Amino acid sequence: MKGRKKILISNDDGVKAKGLASLIEVAKEFGDVLVVAPHMPRSGMSTAITVELPIRLKQVEKNNGVEIYSCTGTPVDCIKIAFDQLLDTSPDLVLAGINHGANSSISVHYSGTMGAVIEGCIHEVPSIGFSLCDYRPDADFSLMMPFVRNLIHETLRNGLPTGTCLNVNAPEGKPKGIMVCRQGHGRWVEEFDARKDPHNRNYYWITGYYKNMDNGVDDTDNHALAGGLVSVVPINIDLTNHSLIDTLKNWEL
Amino acid sequence: MKGRKKILISNDDGVKAKGLASLIEVAKEFGDVLVVAPHMPRSGMSTAITVELPIRLKQVEKNNGVEIYSCTGTPVDCIKIAFDQLLDTSPDLVLAGINHGANSSISVHYSGTMGAVIEGCIHEVPSIGFSLCDYRPDADFSLMMPFVRNLIHETLRNGLPTGTCLNVNAPEGKPKGIMVCRQGHGRWVEEFDARKDPHNRNYYWITGYYKNMDNGVDDTDNHALAGGLVSVVPINIDLTNHSLIDTLKNWEL
Repeated sequence: MKGRKKILISNDDGVKAKGLASLIEVAKEFGDVLVVAPHMPRSGMSTAITVELPIRLKQVEKNNGVEIYSCTGTPVDCIKIAFDQLLDTSPDLVLAGINHGANSSISVHYSGTMGAVIEGCIHEVPSIGFSLCDYRPDADFSLMMPFVRNLIHETLRNGLPTGTCLNVNAPEGKPKGIMVCRQGHGRWVEEFDARKDPHNRNYYWITGYYKNMDNGVDDTDNHALAGGLVSVVPINIDLTNHSLIDTLKNWEL
Repeated sequence: MKGRKKILISNDDGVKAKGLASLIEVAKEFGDVLVVAPHMPRSGMSTAITVELPIRLKQVEKNNGVEIYSCTGTPVDCIKIAFDQLLDTSPDLVLAGINHGANSSISVHYSGTMGAVIEGCIHEVPSIGFSLCDYRPDADFSLMMPFVRNLIHETLRNGLPTGTCLNVNAPEGKPKGIMVCRQGHGRWVEEFDARKDPHNRNYYWITGYYKNMDNGVDDTDNHALAGGLVSVVPINIDLTNHSLIDTLKNWEL
């Protein structure tokens, strides 16, 4: 790789998250870094955009090839406004994370981190989302760093096909290795916690548990993580189930 | 089809939207209808969930086999809380819409309407999202109704494979027919509208235009809509690019 690269970074845990700082540290080894991250935690924001409210953008740091902005929008808004307002040319790479908590399996749909990555991919830039299976604010990101560094290096070297990005998850503790795999099959089963406010009105907090719906398989992100491996899933932005088109053409529509 | 069906409906334009009322009218021909819809417009919410705030749920109507709740959460929250708090057994069908405005092509990623549909699909219920290419609050949904009715009928009759839902868009005016197709390739190019507030601070409104990136193709939703046809795209919830897994295994990871 010749010359300084330009790397755009966002996340969904907010501009002050430790995981973001860790990702910036590695990214700046590869080039100049522009960070646009939510001003507060925006977990679960998926690829949501802000249409009902205006958004604000504020520079919070600029030194040694790292420029950081906080944004009141969603992670996708952060990527979009970076492209429109801050970048002269497309970056070489879009990164998001490192997320505090897993974004494997079905969680790819809800993740604001992966929302930012999908938006980078929609902009036809190679894009990677990184997550660590540890929700704590002081989670230790150092053990996954060699894998993050290598994935950035290999992505810059090989590129990614247009329309595909990467969802990378690391297990707690020191990873035993890395595995390219598919999105595991499962879902979150919600158990809303119903409470009464001081005015005796109901309100609900979302809670629940993950239900694994794969059995005896060894090719999923869940399987990799359970075995202590970093999981790498290539993610499509074309959601079409192409193989079903012919079947549907036989319906009486 | 024997017996009364149970149909769960949501949307992203809010519980008072005309498009929702239109969809309820058709759905109740097929069975009992449970509606849980956002209490206010939540366009662009994708598959976002509400994790930082509690949510509220309020019954606003109950008569003749139609029960309607408003919910302060996202469209996905609406589906999730319906499953956990309101339904004893899985519904036969999850519907969302009818959206005021197109959700074709790349907009499937941002759409709260399609977020609700994807959530229904994650719950392994056949799910369909309906949208009309007309953003106006008083849009005329009547011309697409024969297609909506038939799609509901055919989906109840044929079922859908687990993990696949339908994204249906209708053109303005009387549709000339219907076409099963793929998600068109394109993206929104943002042009944020930068303004000054009364305190001389910057703020931004999201605006932009759709950039079609398909050329000379006749198998996309955009092509169908441009030709006055209703588009039907089967949508996967497994986002894995399976064909890229072997390539990535050759990277030096």
